[in-house]
Amino acid sequence: MVMELLVTTSLFLPWPFSGISCIIQGCIHHRGQSGFHIKLNMKSLITADFSAAAVLITFGALLGKVSRLQLLIIAFIEILMFAVNEFILLEELKVADAGGSMVIHCFGAYFGLALSFVLKRPEDTDNNAKEGSVYHSDIFAMIGTIFLWMYWPSFNSVLVSPAVDQQRAVINTYLSLVACCVTTFAVSAFINTDRKLDMVHVQNATLAGGVAVGTLANMIIEPWGAILIGFLAAILSVAGYKYITPFLDEKLHIHDTCGVNNLHGMPAILAGIAGAVAAKLADADDYKDRFVINNIM
Amino acid sequence: MVMELLVTTSLFLPWPFSGISCIIQGCIHHRGQSGFHIKLNMKSLITADFSAAAVLITFGALLGKVSRLQLLIIAFIEILMFAVNEFILLEELKVADAGGSMVIHCFGAYFGLALSFVLKRPEDTDNNAKEGSVYHSDIFAMIGTIFLWMYWPSFNSVLVSPAVDQQRAVINTYLSLVACCVTTFAVSAFINTDRKLDMVHVQNATLAGGVAVGTLANMIIEPWGAILIGFLAAILSVAGYKYITPFLDEKLHIHDTCGVNNLHGMPAILAGIAGAVAAKLADADDYKDRFVINNIM
Amino acid sequence: MVMELLVTTSLFLPWPFSGISCIIQGCIHHRGQSGFHIKLNMKSLITADFSAAAVLITFGALLGKVSRLQLLIIAFIEILMFAVNEFILLEELKVADAGGSMVIHCFGAYFGLALSFVLKRPEDTDNNAKEGSVYHSDIFAMIGTIFLWMYWPSFNSVLVSPAVDQQRAVINTYLSLVACCVTTFAVSAFINTDRKLDMVHVQNATLAGGVAVGTLANMIIEPWGAILIGFLAAILSVAGYKYITPFLDEKLHIHDTCGVNNLHGMPAILAGIAGAVAAKLADADDYKDRFVINNIM
Repeated sequence: MVMELLVTTSLFLPWPFSGISCIIQGCIHHRGQSGFHIKLNMKSLITADFSAAAVLITFGALLGKVSRLQLLIIAFIEILMFAVNEFILLEELKVADAGGSMVIHCFGAYFGLALSFVLKRPEDTDNNAKEGSVYHSDIFAMIGTIFLWMYWPSFNSVLVSPAVDQQRAVINTYLSLVACCVTTFAVSAFINTDRKLDMVHVQNATLAGGVAVGTLANMIIEPWGAILIGFLAAILSVAGYKYITPFLDEKLHIHDTCGVNNLHGMPAILAGIAGAVAAKLADADDYKDRFVINNIM
Repeated sequence: MVMELLVTTSLFLPWPFSGISCIIQGCIHHRGQSGFHIKLNMKSLITADFSAAAVLITFGALLGKVSRLQLLIIAFIEILMFAVNEFILLEELKVADAGGSMVIHCFGAYFGLALSFVLKRPEDTDNNAKEGSVYHSDIFAMIGTIFLWMYWPSFNSVLVSPAVDQQRAVINTYLSLVACCVTTFAVSAFINTDRKLDMVHVQNATLAGGVAVGTLANMIIEPWGAILIGFLAAILSVAGYKYITPFLDEKLHIHDTCGVNNLHGMPAILAGIAGAVAAKLADADDYKDRFVINNIM
Repeated sequence: MVMELLVTTSLFLPWPFSGISCIIQGCIHHRGQSGFHIKLNMKSLITADFSAAAVLITFGALLGKVSRLQLLIIAFIEILMFAVNEFILLEELKVADAGGSMVIHCFGAYFGLALSFVLKRPEDTDNNAKEGSVYHSDIFAMIGTIFLWMYWPSFNSVLVSPAVDQQRAVINTYLSLVACCVTTFAVSAFINTDRKLDMVHVQNATLAGGVAVGTLANMIIEPWGAILIGFLAAILSVAGYKYITPFLDEKLHIHDTCGVNNLHGMPAILAGIAGAVAAKLADADDYKDRFVINNIM
């Protein structure tokens, strides 16, 4: 039971480091200029928050394996790496990533899984009794799920240019989440031999649609596109919890405490692929004079 | 205790159907036109959410009596009926219903109670031991109550025209909720023989003022009008939990699991009556050139 | 355990009285004018909410010592005193207090502590077994802490003039909270002999930075200023829980149930001092034509 409080206090750890993120981003933006002033505005605070979100995702793969001091060191290094990765993707490669699926979710998940591979101890397995949930944890987790579900459209649209693009990002995210939620319930009941719902699926896979539509949330993908992405994300995520997490644990010795590969990793890869397809199919006429898709930076 | 998780996951069920609501409303709005394009914007998503809210209210009368599969079928049919009812009230009869008290709360509650009458099994009574709450459920329910209380002014004003009308809707809803909250505490202590507060009243009746002022939230009803409505709603709601729910259960064989008649049904009827009175008394001079009261559609 | 529900329902008590606050403020604003109309708008509702916040802080010092009826009487009197104090500070002395640290937090905390001194019974001591927390209370309290942390920047900026000033208030509050959060974790681990974190510190002292920067949130204090204030607030608050609360309890017979002196009282005094320093150092050129700093009224 002490696990719960450990998790709750650990969630506080990355936020302070978002302050460091502001400094690093300030340095990156001022490269080659004389003088040195870091501008702080809403955008830089939101980007800093996003970098903290990547650290939280990483923690999801590591909780229980590492001490709080180790988490602090990991957070410090990851914020640096996050800024470098974001700079390469968004500034150099000019990648479109409205909701940060690649920059935040994919990076955070696989950063955590790589660390988990290195730091795994013999007792870190899915069979560990402490890994199961207790009844009240499930209720608390549902509160978290509901809030994430509600705020995901805001998350995916906050750094998109206002009005038309932002409304499109909200609607696409909402449709993807709705499709993901239905599919998760159906697949979870279908995949379990007793036809019951698995609370882990309900708490996690219902959110995968938000990750999977993140990269292309502000693109013109039509409602059926958003719904298709949410549908695929749910199947991927539920199948991940059922088959891939145990496989990674047993065969590859990668232990994933909260299943971040299923909620963040694989749906983010789906987002990257879907984003590339949508960008290839995009017609400049549809976007008219607003063809520049906004990055999160 | 499994009830809690059943309730929590059931709350997710209606949202997917809100997608269906978008399609139905698209069909209604395009009747008689050539071509077929459904426009999705913030308003259609909010209306879809509102239809999901009606389904949630219906579930409140049915939880524990029906299987999840039955809930799915009910949700599907209710979304269709919701759209028909909303079309008749708002489009044909041109009824003013800013916060949807009639369209959402009244419809949802009595749809549920009618189903409850039909589906009632012998063991569904107020005397069922599973119907009582446990200590931690009460705390969780208080979190829900506080969030509903906080967001009710937004709920009643979201589809009202911005600035003046919206501010009026927020203030009227807030005043009604405040009056309702005070009155609930007083009446609950007064009505119990041991002068203690009943947690069911605190969790539910404190919100009845938001329902009861919904229809006329954006009308000029003066602060005393909003406070009077909240005051009456609290008395109605507490008396409902104390006397009317047992009466319905024993005499009419209508079992109301969460007491939706007390929080949604009767306060919504009050809202309809108060709305009719306020519309009758409305003076075009007060509203000046903005006499058109906005519907939620 | 009944304490939890008592606390939860007590949190509802002050809100109704915020309605009284609207009336009192209406009277104050119309002094010396003929006619009598109280204008209700968003600002008057927010100010009324703020007065309810002061009452909630006061309750933090009194919970467990007084009956609900006594709480009602206290809330009624405090709302009146709040309006008088606010009028003197903001209207007569023209004090700048953007986030209301002096008007809300300082007033609420010491109003409560004075009452606690008068109302203390022999059994009200820190050694009372009921004063400890149970595991689930700690989890619930963390939900409260996280929501307060998230919304504190909004709290400190809501009544500041929009755009530039408001953005500055948000950023200063955020930086102060971040610095406060880091420092709390460090100091809490350092101050405990077993180097463990104390949940009371994590739940409370992490928020002290928001109080301590409240008065000067919209002033030009540079990021280092905001961070310094958060740093000092955390040390003050953790040291308060560790040393000052037991001292007040044993030596001065002032019992502080929730430690409001540590989260609200002393950080608010720090805010007042920091605000005076910042106002003294303020350069009219920096603020250009916007030298008028906005009060919360």
